[in-house]
Order: sequence, then structure tokens, then C-alpha cells
Amino acid sequence: MNILLLNGPNLNLLGTRQTDVYGGTTLDEIEQNAIEHAKALGFELTCLQSNHEGVLIDAIHDARTHAKGIILNAGAFTHTSVALMDAISSVKLPVVEVHLSNIHAREAFRHKSFIAPVALGQIAGFGPNSYILAIDALTSHLKAPDR
Amino acid sequence: MNILLLNGPNLNLLGTRQTDVYGGTTLDEIEQNAIEHAKALGFELTCLQSNHEGVLIDAIHDARTHAKGIILNAGAFTHTSVALMDAISSVKLPVVEVHLSNIHAREAFRHKSFIAPVALGQIAGFGPNSYILAIDALTSHLKAPDR
Amino acid sequence: MNILLLNGPNLNLLGTRQTDVYGGTTLDEIEQNAIEHAKALGFELTCLQSNHEGVLIDAIHDARTHAKGIILNAGAFTHTSVALMDAISSVKLPVVEVHLSNIHAREAFRHKSFIAPVALGQIAGFGPNSYILAIDALTSHLKAPDR
Amino acid sequence: MNILLLNGPNLNLLGTRQTDVYGGTTLDEIEQNAIEHAKALGFELTCLQSNHEGVLIDAIHDARTHAKGIILNAGAFTHTSVALMDAISSVKLPVVEVHLSNIHAREAFRHKSFIAPVALGQIAGFGPNSYILAIDALTSHLKAPDR
Amino acid sequence: MNILLLNGPNLNLLGTRQTDVYGGTTLDEIEQNAIEHAKALGFELTCLQSNHEGVLIDAIHDARTHAKGIILNAGAFTHTSVALMDAISSVKLPVVEVHLSNIHAREAFRHKSFIAPVALGQIAGFGPNSYILAIDALTSHLKAPDR
Amino acid sequence: MNILLLNGPNLNLLGTRQTDVYGGTTLDEIEQNAIEHAKALGFELTCLQSNHEGVLIDAIHDARTHAKGIILNAGAFTHTSVALMDAISSVKLPVVEVHLSNIHAREAFRHKSFIAPVALGQIAGFGPNSYILAIDALTSHLKAPDR
Amino acid sequence: MNILLLNGPNLNLLGTRQTDVYGGTTLDEIEQNAIEHAKALGFELTCLQSNHEGVLIDAIHDARTHAKGIILNAGAFTHTSVALMDAISSVKLPVVEVHLSNIHAREAFRHKSFIAPVALGQIAGFGPNSYILAIDALTSHLKAPDR
Amino acid sequence: MNILLLNGPNLNLLGTRQTDVYGGTTLDEIEQNAIEHAKALGFELTCLQSNHEGVLIDAIHDARTHAKGIILNAGAFTHTSVALMDAISSVKLPVVEVHLSNIHAREAFRHKSFIAPVALGQIAGFGPNSYILAIDALTSHLKAPDR
Amino acid sequence: MNILLLNGPNLNLLGTRQTDVYGGTTLDEIEQNAIEHAKALGFELTCLQSNHEGVLIDAIHDARTHAKGIILNAGAFTHTSVALMDAISSVKLPVVEVHLSNIHAREAFRHKSFIAPVALGQIAGFGPNSYILAIDALTSHLKAPDR
Amino acid sequence: MNILLLNGPNLNLLGTRQTDVYGGTTLDEIEQNAIEHAKALGFELTCLQSNHEGVLIDAIHDARTHAKGIILNAGAFTHTSVALMDAISSVKLPVVEVHLSNIHAREAFRHKSFIAPVALGQIAGFGPNSYILAIDALTSHLKAPDR
Amino acid sequence: MNILLLNGPNLNLLGTRQTDVYGGTTLDEIEQNAIEHAKALGFELTCLQSNHEGVLIDAIHDARTHAKGIILNAGAFTHTSVALMDAISSVKLPVVEVHLSNIHAREAFRHKSFIAPVALGQIAGFGPNSYILAIDALTSHLKAPDR
Amino acid sequence: MNILLLNGPNLNLLGTRQTDVYGGTTLDEIEQNAIEHAKALGFELTCLQSNHEGVLIDAIHDARTHAKGIILNAGAFTHTSVALMDAISSVKLPVVEVHLSNIHAREAFRHKSFIAPVALGQIAGFGPNSYILAIDALTSHLKAPDR
Repeated sequence: MNILLLNGPNLNLLGTRQTDVYGGTTLDEIEQNAIEHAKALGFELTCLQSNHEGVLIDAIHDARTHAKGIILNAGAFTHTSVALMDAISSVKLPVVEVHLSNIHAREAFRHKSFIAPVALGQIAGFGPNSYILAIDALTSHLKAPDR
Repeated sequence: MNILLLNGPNLNLLGTRQTDVYGGTTLDEIEQNAIEHAKALGFELTCLQSNHEGVLIDAIHDARTHAKGIILNAGAFTHTSVALMDAISSVKLPVVEVHLSNIHAREAFRHKSFIAPVALGQIAGFGPNSYILAIDALTSHLKAPDR
Repeated sequence: MNILLLNGPNLNLLGTRQTDVYGGTTLDEIEQNAIEHAKALGFELTCLQSNHEGVLIDAIHDARTHAKGIILNAGAFTHTSVALMDAISSVKLPVVEVHLSNIHAREAFRHKSFIAPVALGQIAGFGPNSYILAIDALTSHLKAPDR
Repeated sequence: MNILLLNGPNLNLLGTRQTDVYGGTTLDEIEQNAIEHAKALGFELTCLQSNHEGVLIDAIHDARTHAKGIILNAGAFTHTSVALMDAISSVKLPVVEVHLSNIHAREAFRHKSFIAPVALGQIAGFGPNSYILAIDALTSHLKAPDR
Repeated sequence: MNILLLNGPNLNLLGTRQTDVYGGTTLDEIEQNAIEHAKALGFELTCLQSNHEGVLIDAIHDARTHAKGIILNAGAFTHTSVALMDAISSVKLPVVEVHLSNIHAREAFRHKSFIAPVALGQIAGFGPNSYILAIDALTSHLKAPDR
Repeated sequence: MNILLLNGPNLNLLGTRQTDVYGGTTLDEIEQNAIEHAKALGFELTCLQSNHEGVLIDAIHDARTHAKGIILNAGAFTHTSVALMDAISSVKLPVVEVHLSNIHAREAFRHKSFIAPVALGQIAGFGPNSYILAIDALTSHLKAPDR
Repeated sequence: MNILLLNGPNLNLLGTRQTDVYGGTTLDEIEQNAIEHAKALGFELTCLQSNHEGVLIDAIHDARTHAKGIILNAGAFTHTSVALMDAISSVKLPVVEVHLSNIHAREAFRHKSFIAPVALGQIAGFGPNSYILAIDALTSHLKAPDR
Repeated sequence: MNILLLNGPNLNLLGTRQTDVYGGTTLDEIEQNAIEHAKALGFELTCLQSNHEGVLIDAIHDARTHAKGIILNAGAFTHTSVALMDAISSVKLPVVEVHLSNIHAREAFRHKSFIAPVALGQIAGFGPNSYILAIDALTSHLKAPDR
Repeated sequence: MNILLLNGPNLNLLGTRQTDVYGGTTLDEIEQNAIEHAKALGFELTCLQSNHEGVLIDAIHDARTHAKGIILNAGAFTHTSVALMDAISSVKLPVVEVHLSNIHAREAFRHKSFIAPVALGQIAGFGPNSYILAIDALTSHLKAPDR
Repeated sequence: MNILLLNGPNLNLLGTRQTDVYGGTTLDEIEQNAIEHAKALGFELTCLQSNHEGVLIDAIHDARTHAKGIILNAGAFTHTSVALMDAISSVKLPVVEVHLSNIHAREAFRHKSFIAPVALGQIAGFGPNSYILAIDALTSHLKAPDR
Repeated sequence: MNILLLNGPNLNLLGTRQTDVYGGTTLDEIEQNAIEHAKALGFELTCLQSNHEGVLIDAIHDARTHAKGIILNAGAFTHTSVALMDAISSVKLPVVEVHLSNIHAREAFRHKSFIAPVALGQIAGFGPNSYILAIDALTSHLKAPDR
Repeated sequence: MNILLLNGPNLNLLGTRQTDVYGGTTLDEIEQNAIEHAKALGFELTCLQSNHEGVLIDAIHDARTHAKGIILNAGAFTHTSVALMDAISSVKLPVVEVHLSNIHAREAFRHKSFIAPVALGQIAGFGPNSYILAIDALTSHLKAPDR
């Protein structure tokens, strides 16, 4: 089974920016670890990062044809994009919302998530480990017998 | 005379998703019907759909060179895009705002439209027929003698 | 089949007041055009205008006995009347909400509609033509085979 | 190393109430699974559930003497208790906030968390599996070399 | 030293639209004047305009490799884009926020700027001259001895 | 002693509309039961229903001449009518506010009552039985020795 | 020249209710005094009071045919009636808004006036004398040479 | 059949405090009258009062084992306790919300009830008689044939 | 009897600025007319204008020793000065609030008046005539037998 | 005369937690100093701390039998507990509200106090000295001749 | 060591106005008592009262040259003056905020204090004694060894 | 041509206070630099600083007689003074709003400017250089041929 790992705006700079806040791990390292972790659980992980909202929406649409679920860190689009919310509603794939930092402990405008109401669940605040936990959460969900 | 029919994010999935809500008509069928209906009224209709806000803005800019009016279903961008609002203000073409569903009867954040204050008028809630009514409204407006 | 065309407060002054905003067409002319347009589509149209909220509510109740649908321009009551909203909910007839001007481009308190959440759809901003479009929308709906 | 698993009001009824929403797993089963999962990772887990805010505050205070971290599902107190928030600030133990359901997809008053600003991170929406993921997250954190 | 001049949505239409509001100067003329003005102060200016939020984010990221500062007129994205805000935070280059019109004297939704909290300063209301003042402000800052 | 039972807009349709929500009892049956129940307690009950706010205000004014108290289900006017509120303040008769459904469990705009601040008390949510309870409450109040 | 004096809901009870707040003068006395005061200034005054919003709207419409200006105490409708506001806008007669009490010193919901934005001016707080001052204000306005 | 009568914080002081507001009846007298009134209707009434939110939650949980319905005056917890709200949802027993005073006529923060959305109905403002009316309402509900 | 006529910030420029809005009458002319009008009614009028809030507060305090009432046009301080509000409360002299323009029909921040809650009444919108009406209102009040 | 010193949630940890914020003085030291300071002024001080809201309410109720006034640091309950507010209203003892830190200079949700509206006065921001000042304030009040 | 006692607008009227609210003590008496109380503690107290915001700001600036701390009752400016707030921030002297009445128990606009966020602490509600307590608080702070 | 440079409250302390935030340049140095910079551009600059709002208003009024434009740093009055706003509207001189710091990146109450809606433009965030840029902006404006 295939899973799509989707990262939104500015996450391409991970590990090279504000390392005191986000740590020194790069997006490439996160993606490699995620691919391996998923593989060990019997899943194939495809990765995409984009700073373009439209590219992310297109990717969610395309996922219907090749993936069983999505792990999504929508970055700043989390707080503003009704279009991403609608894209997720449209494709009806289970989505796990991921954040490196605890968005609930940051500025007020980051407490609002347009992804949350259409996601399976949310994991936030554990740095790169958030992605590993998300893979565990999504794969457990996909393997559940009553699906 | 030429009219531009512009559809925004996620509308490419029409007829293939949430058919209980949006019905089973695909965007292609809607566009074909619209082209024919416009033709019968003596207008040529050009169609474009995109999930990219920038592509929609570019298309509105370009419309100045080839169209007399725009029919716009901005999808989720309706509720968040000041940039689309400014694009319409800039080109000064008459725009008819269209929605498949009655956005005023959905979630509160869908009641706000950034398109409405710069549109000629709004038609919402009649499914694919909304597009036909929009063509009637726009072409009546374009044919009005005092224009 | 019968349709009720209901106009609310101050619409009796149409064509005689603020003609720069609302145009010079009188309510009587609008009603005559509407009757003829409906007739051509095979429907009989009954017209009523009142400045009294209670009279409008009574008319909506009575419509159950003689009409298949309602075209309603509730004027200023659109923004304040929960009672009209409840009346529409009660009778369960399809209602098309009509406005001469684009209420979404006017004062903030006119953006709120208590009619919209219980209406089939909304047509706003096309002057007297709004009524013609509303008849088209309602009759299409009533003729739809899956009703 | 010891971990405290703290459950707040009404969670004692898990598995016996609203099983369509929360599933059929009882709190006792969740606690047993959690104890075993922690054990396999080399941690001892102590469990406490209470409907009394004061008892939960006392337990957080006491945790300083015997635990290295806390997994907390504060239930309804999540949304109202500044006192629990202050208790966590006082003891300076890492806290992982857990919710069975996706609180961000429920009523608006459940979007607000007084726990989140003082927690390490949040895991919500994965049913009983949320607890397993929380143990993984907390133990990873506790084992991290730079602690 | 290099400076990036970045213009956002709809600014490509400058001088050709609403000339009563924005004046008759085109974006091309503004950019040429800016390049010459910067040159006279010993700086090289690179120009980019896009209606695509993602392109602007990418450009801000790329600026790290070739520029010492950014002059940004984000247009309508000023008021909605958390992603642009995060992009500026990430690259840690000094950014001067520019507006042709006095946004504080326009509609309420244009008073909010997501760029301001992460910008060095803001210049608004002086038409094309705003860009010249911004170049003066940014180059003074870059030349300051205590940098 | 005489009591006035006043019912507001749309309540004339009771028992004939939305019977799944409001039950199958008609207003006529409710009024007959109320008259009998009041009679058994030694009170005469007069009934009036109107969809016209002005008629309800007139009735409250007139009540001074023939009634000792009022039972009022103002329907949708509950949430919008300052004029009804002022009418009750003017006549200084004890008013018991009644609602068939639990208005506090419905849409947010139904939580606001302009009647409540000037009423003796409120009974909501018990269907037709709400009226019986209101008669008990009002007659107990009227019989209380310290009046 | 003729003037219309219009009083809204509950004002028929003046002098007979809450005399500690509104004083002991009846509406009839106020109207008689107003008629005499207007007469002395060379104006004929017609009086109407109604608890029905529709009757007040009709009266404003009719005023076009027989009056040069209106003195309006809309009572509680002041704070809720967009329809009265629109009626005044439609007839384009000068309207002086009158209140017996200082509405700005009462409950917050009485601070909002839908009449004020379309009125010539407002006089509030001087009891029955407010009407005399309003006649002075309106007749001065009507006599002004630059009208 | 058994009914639980639950009183929340500060209600133990009834009859001994603020007797001008709440009257001179003590909680003990209210409970004795309630027991007798219930008995006459064929129901057994158990009484509990506590100033501890946790004790009230525990009592609601326990009620599942011995009661068919609950009469609840949650006092100040009415306005703040999401945990009590959840407790009621969990046990699925019919709950009648009772208040001695008309909470809708008091401070704004007392207009909000977390109990109301999960209660059968609400009775407020009739002093000790509120409890008698609540017993009537609950027992009628329990005796209804369609339960 | 003596009356104080107090004018606040920017009113010294009357008649010399924005004459299209405020008319061509100067403050000196308004004051002379007011003095004469008061004299004819048997009152002596003292005038003061200041752009300094402190000077206005001092003048209100001093008025206790020489005046029976105050006519106050606080200009922009109307909307911001709690200190002026408290000064009026302290001296307990009747104050008539005056405005040249209809402040309720201007920007939203001009609808709020800190003077109104402590004033006898308000007269707004009649240009220089507002002052004459205010003298009539205040002197009627001062002459009233029940004072 | 007896005084009750009541401390709320988390204050038991004083001097052992966040000593950079709250200083190194323990609650025991604060209580001993308070007892001695009160004794010197001729008052006996009883101390209680609890993390349980119900225990605090019970203590306020009991205070009627043995104390003349209360010094209350309700900690986090200050901002959330309507029940504590009502408890103070019920017992009618003078209460001095105390806070170690200046709550008005902290997070916005700490600016709201449910204790303040029913307290004699508030002392905040002086660390342990706040308690000494509160004893001075309360004992002065209790000794005042006009009590 | 010198302390400045600063009183703001309307406080010059103390003891002569609203004596039921503020008591019969004059500002002169308060100042004399304060001077003596400070003297006994080894401090010299300078007093100033003004109704002019600018005078108060100047006095705070001057205090840097002759005082070690400030006791400030800013009266109504407490709730509106950002300039006073900035003045205190600038001089970096410890400021104790004083109020005669409990501002937290008065109108909502008096709950907001611009002084509090930059003050050492706040004492409110103890009448003239508030000043004595403030002197105790400030002098204790100034004598503290760790300063 | 003459220009007025006006500085508001607390700016007299520049360079002597919070030098980490505002830098070490004194107001005197800023004014001298400004005078010289203006001179080089052919303008004479007059300087005034005051902590008194009334003095600033008077100065703006006086400017009509001797200046062609104003550079205004209203300090804290920026956020609170409607009177300054009105003063600028009255004199109709071009005003450039200046701030040393980026007010849009500070506390929320500093985002609101009453000066902005009536100013030519705004320059904020460039320290003392803000004044130099303002002189450039204002003099360019004054020299523009189409003025």
C-alpha cells in the first residue's frame, strides 16, 4: 500500500533555518527516515514538497489513483487554506495532520486549522518524530480490520 | 462577443466526488453545455479550470484582451482571496459569481465572499443550472442598450 | 402549476424612487413581465407585495394550498426576520431568494440573510432581470425528473 | 523510569458509553495496553483517573517525586481549567496531551486547550491508539541524548 | 551588493488600470527607476513580479544566495499570506514593506499586514516614490556600521 | 381570574408541519387542553395566535383590562422583538415564557431571548406539556399569598 | 406646509405606564401640544401612532403626497427595523428622530439606531419637550432659504 | 421508578442567605417537598447536594444504576462546566435543568448554559416551585407511552 | 441664571474649514447668537473653547461656582474621554450634549459617546441651530417647576 | 476577631517552583508571617490551602461561623470560578483579593477576575508582601467605626 | 529618599463630590496623611494633582531627577492613556497603581488599565487607605536588599 | 517653503531612555539633522515637541499660516487621538506620519492609527532615518508639478 507524504510552504528550508526552533534535521533526512520507517511497516511512501498551494491541491487529487492515505504538514497554509480543506474533503482519503512544533502554543492565528476538521487526527510538537508517529497512526488505521 | 468561464480549486473533481452533494455531472459536461447555451445566444465561451490562484489571476488579466465578461466560480478562493478581488477590480470586466451549492446555507466561513463586492451579481444554489442562469444574466447585461 | 411571487417592504415604490440605483421599472411592470415569462414556460404566477411582515408570513402559509414554489424578495426583512425563515421551513415549498441589487456589495448588515439558509438558492444583482432568472431557476427545479 | 498516565472526567465510562463515537475499548483495557507497551520500551507506567479537578492537580504535583513525564487526557477540563495549566507549568515535567477524538473537528468550545500551551505536544483523533502514540512520543523525548 | 525587488499580485497591471487611483506609471517604469536609483547608491537591483504566491515564496528563498535585502510589495497577499510571513522569517534577510497607496486609509481588511511583524519597516502612500524611499531605507540599513 | 395565552408566528401550523420535530398535536388541541387545565385550577384562559407582531403587542396592551397574567410563546419574535419586550415592561403583568423545543439546544441565534429579561420565568423543551407546566407556574404565582 | 408626527410601538401607553421613567404626560397631550406648537409656527401637523411596523412604513410612503417632513419616534423599532430605514431612504423627506429618554444612556442594544443614518438629526432625552424641539428643528430646516 | 435530585454549589445555603433574592425556603424544605410531590406521583426521589464538581459528576455516573431521570440545578457550574455536560451525555438519562431565578434576566455570563444543550428542557425563575414543575415535567416524560 | 457654553477641540476653526460639511458660520457667530438667544430667555451665557482636554475639565469643575447648566460640544473628545465623563458626573450640573453634524450617520467610532450616559439629552445634526435648540432644551429644564 | 487566609490551586508549591517568577518564600513561611502580622494587629488568622474548588467553597461557607473577614488568593480559579464568586456573595463577609504577581501584566485570560466584583478590594503584584498589605487593608476595614 | 504622589483628573474634587461613593475625605487630607505616613517610614513625599494629561507626563519625566518611585492614581486616564503608559516605561521608576474604588467591580471600560502592565502592582478598593497601603508597598519594595 | 516637524508625547526622552529599543540618538540630534537635510533640499524646517495633546492640536492649526506640510510623529497619541485626526482634516495640509519603530510589529493596540486615514503616507521602523525619509517624501510631494 502506498502513502503520500506532503509538505507545504517553507518546509524545504528545514534544518537550514531557525535551527534553534526547528532543529537541525533537513527535510531530506526527514523524508528518508519516513520512507524507511514506512517500508519496515510494509508501506511505500512517496514524498512531495511545494510552496505552491495549487501544486499541493493537485497532489491531493492525484493521490486518489495511487495512495491509500496522506500525511500532511501544510505549514502556513494550515491556517488559511479553505481550498486544501475542500481538496481533502473531495478525495476522501484518510489524512493525518502533522506539525513539527506545537502550533497551539504559538501565535493565536496558528491555533486555527482548516485541515483539522477534515483530518483523521493531529500530531503536533514532537519535531521530526512527529512524522514517525504519523506513519504509525496512519498505518495502524489502514490495517484496522473494520475498515 | 467572447465570455470567459473560470472555475477554481477542486472543481475539476466535479461529478466524481461527493455526488450526493454536488450531483453526478462532471465539469466537462458543464463546460460543454455552457458553450452550447452561449452559442445559441450568440456568444463564444472559453473555459479554464485551475487549482492555482495565480493561474486564475493571470486568466482574469488576460481576459481584457479577448473577452467582454467573466463567469467565475472561485470555489474555496471565494472566501479568502483578496488577490482575486483585486484582479477583478483591475480589469473592470463584468463578472457574474456562480456557486453550485447555496453557500449561505453552509458553514459560516463560506458566507463571506471577497468576489461579491466587485461582481455584477451572484447566483448560488441551483447546481449545474447555476451556470446556465449565469450565462443568461451576463449576456442580458452585455446586450443591454445603455451599456 | 402555480408559483407565488412575493415582494416585501418598500418594493411597492420601485421605479418611482431612487431610480439611479434601482432603475425606472415599476413593480407593476416587473410583475407583468414575470407573469408572461412564467406563462411561456407553462406556469401560472400569482403576485403579492406587502410592507407587513405578518401578511408575508400568512401568504407563505397559504401558498401550501395553491402553489408549488415561491419567488421571494423579502427586502429589508431578509436581514432581520427569523419569523419569515421559520415560515419557509414550515411550508417546505422550494423558495428562490431574489434581490435587485447585489446585497453582498452593500452595507455589512445587508450581507446577512435569514432567508438563504432555508432557500433553494439566491439570485442577486441583476435588477429586474433577477426575477426572470429566478423564474427560470425555479421552473427548472420544479420540472426536474427526480423531484 | 516512571511515567504517569492521567485521565480526567468521564473517561471512566469509556467503552460503556457512546461506543459508536468512542469505540468499545474500556479504560481498563487502555490502561493495561499502555502499561504493557511502556514496559516493552523500558518504562513503568502508573495510571490514575478522576472526575475531580483537585485530584488531578494533586497527582501532577506528586508526579515530581516519582515520574519523568506525564501523559494527560484531561477530558472536558482541557477546555476550562487554568488550574491544570498552572499545575503543569509548576512541576516542569514534559506532558503529552492526548485525545481520543479529533477535538479540532468538534464543537468550537472544544478547539480551545489550556493544556496545549504548556504541553510538549498533542496527539488527537486516533482512538485508543492515541495513547500508544503518546507513549512512543514521550519515551522518545525522554531517551533523547540532548536532554 | 544585491537587492531583490519583489512585486505581488495584480501589480503587473500598474499604469494600465485605475490610473486615477494608482497613477499612470507602469511597473516597468517603476522597476527601471528603481534599478537606476539603486545603482547610483552602489547597489544592484533584481526585479520580479508574480501573481503566484508560491513563486514569491520561492523567490524569497532563493534570495538568500544572491541578495542582501528585499523590497517587497506583496499586494493583496499582504493581508492574507501566513506563508509569505514564514518565508521572510526563514531567510532572515532585512525586508522593507512597500505600498503605493496608504493601506491604513482603505478598507479595514487592508489594515492587517502579515508582512509587517517580520519586516524592518513599512513605507506606504507615496505612489511610485514609495519604492525610491524604500531603496533609501534599505541601503542605509545595509550600510550602517553596526551591522 | 383570567389568563391570556398568546402564540406568535408560525405556531398556527403546529401539528401539521415538521411533526418529527414538534409532534402531531395541533395548536387547537393545545389551546383546548390549556383551557380545561386552567379551568380545573379556577382560571379562565383566553387564546390568541397571530403572525403579526403588531397584533401581539396590541393584545398585550389589552390584557391589562381583562387578565391577571400572560403565557407567551413568541416563536421567532422571541429572538428579534424589542417591541414585544417593551410591551411586556409597559403592562407590568406577570409573563411566563414558553417554548415547545429546548431553544438553548438549537442554533445560536435562538439562544438570545428578548422576552426573558422581562418575564417571570421560562419553560422550554417539554413539547405541548410546556403549556400545562406554564399554567401551573403562573397560577401558583397568582395564588401566592404575598402578592 | 404639512408635517407628519409618527409614533411607534408602545407609545400609545405614554402617561399611563412607567410614569416614573416617562412622566405623566399622555400621547394625546403630546400630540395636542405638538399640533398647537406647529400651528403657531405656520405648519399643520398630522399625527399617527401604531404598534404595527407595516402601518408605519405605509404612513411614511403616503407622507410623500401630503407632508414636507416627518417627526419620528420609532420606539423599539428604532433598534431593529431595516425596513423603516429603507422606507425613509425611499421617500426622501427630511426626518427628525425623536426619543423621550436618552437612549444612549440605556441598555447597549438601544444605542444602535437604524433611523439615525437616514435622518436629518436626532433629539433625545428631554421628555415631551423633545417633540417641541423637533418641531423647531424641522420647521427651521424647512424654512431655510437654501432649500 | 427512581429520580435523582441533584443540587450544585452554594445551594446548601438556600434560605439562609440573600433571602430577598432567593426566598426563605431552605434546601432541606425544598428536598422534603420534592420527595413528597414525587411520591404522590408514584416516584421515589433521592437527593444530593455538593459544592464539588467531581462529586456531582460521580453522582450522575452512579445514577445509571438506580434512577430513570435526573433533576439538576447545577448552580454556578451551569455556566462553566463542560465536564458536567459530558457526564450527562454519557449516561443518556433524561435531565431537567432547574433554576430558582430567571438566569436569562441576570448577568450576561449566566445566560450561557452548558447543561441546556444536553437537557430535555429547562425551567427557570419560579423559586422553589421550579422543582415541583420539574418533577411534573420529568415524570410526564417518563410516563409517556412512546418511550 | 448662568449657563456655560463649552466647545472642544478643532471647533475654533468652524466656518473657516470644510465649509461644505460644517457650513460657513464661525464659532464667534455661533457664540454671539447663543448669547443673544439665551438673554432673550432670561439667561446669561458664558463661552469657552479649548483644544486642551484639561482646560475643558477645569472649566466643568469651575462651572459649579457660577453656572446652573452646561451646553457641551466636546468634539472629538466625545468619543474618547472618560475624564470628561467623570468631570460631568462629579459636578452634577445638567449637561446638554450638542453636535453640529449627525454623528450617528458618520464613521462607526463616532457613534460611541462617553458624554451621553451622563448627559440630560443629546441634540445632533442641525448645524448651528443645534446650539439654539440646546439652549431651549436646557432653559426649559432649568425652569421646570419640579426641579 | 478571626480572619481566614485562603489559598487556591498550586500555591502549595510556592518557593519550590518557578522561584525566578514567584521568589523563594514558601507558603508555610507566608502563612507564619501572616499569622504573626495579624496577631500584632490583634487578630487571629486561620490558614487553609487547597487544590480543590469544592474545599475552598466549603471553607468560605464555614467562615461565617468563626471569621469576620477573608483574605483570598484563588490562584487560577480567580479567572474561571463563578461558584467561588457566588460563595462570597452568599456569606457576605468582606473579602480582600490577593495576588503575588501583577495579573494585569500577564496573559489576557488572567485579566478577568470573577472574585473582584464581589471583593472589597484587590492587591496584586507585591510578592509575599501582598499578603501583609491585605491584612492591613482588611483589619483597617474591620476596625473602621462606621461598620 | 523621595517619592512622588501623582493624582489625575477629577481627583481634586474628592470629598466634595459623590461622597456616598468616594467618602468625605478631601484630596488635601489624603495628601497630608500620605506625607506623614511616608515621613514615619523615612521617606519624603511630593504631591501633584492635575486634570491635564500632559502635566502628568511631564511630572513622570521630571521624577527621574528627584524621586525613587511613584504612587499613581491616574483616574480616568487609567483606561485611555497609552501616553502615560509609555511615560512610565521610559523613566523606569517603580510605580504603584492606586484606585479608591474597586475598578474591577465597575463598568466594563474601567476594567482595562494601561497603567497595570507597566506598574509594580495595583491596590484598589480601600478608599483613602489605598494610598497608605501603596506607600507601604512602595517603601518595602525600595528598601528590599536585593534591589 | 516651510515644513513643520511635530513630535508627540515622550519623544523628548529619546536617546536617554530604552536606548536598546530606540537607539542613542537624542531628539535634539534628530531635529538638527532634519533641519539640515531639509535645508539642502531647499526647505525650512520648524520643530516642536510636546507631551500635551492640546499643544499639538494648536500647532497643527497654526501651521496653516506658515507651513506647506507637516511631518508628524504623534507617539502614543497615534493610537488614541481622534482630536488630532480631526485637526489634520481641518487644516488640509499634507501630513507624513512617522514612527521610529515598526508599530505594526508591536502590541495590537499600536496597530491602530487615527493619523493614517488622514495622512499622505506612513513611514515606520527605520529609527532616526525615518525622519530623513519623511522629509524626502514630503518635499517630493510638495515639488510635484501637478500640485
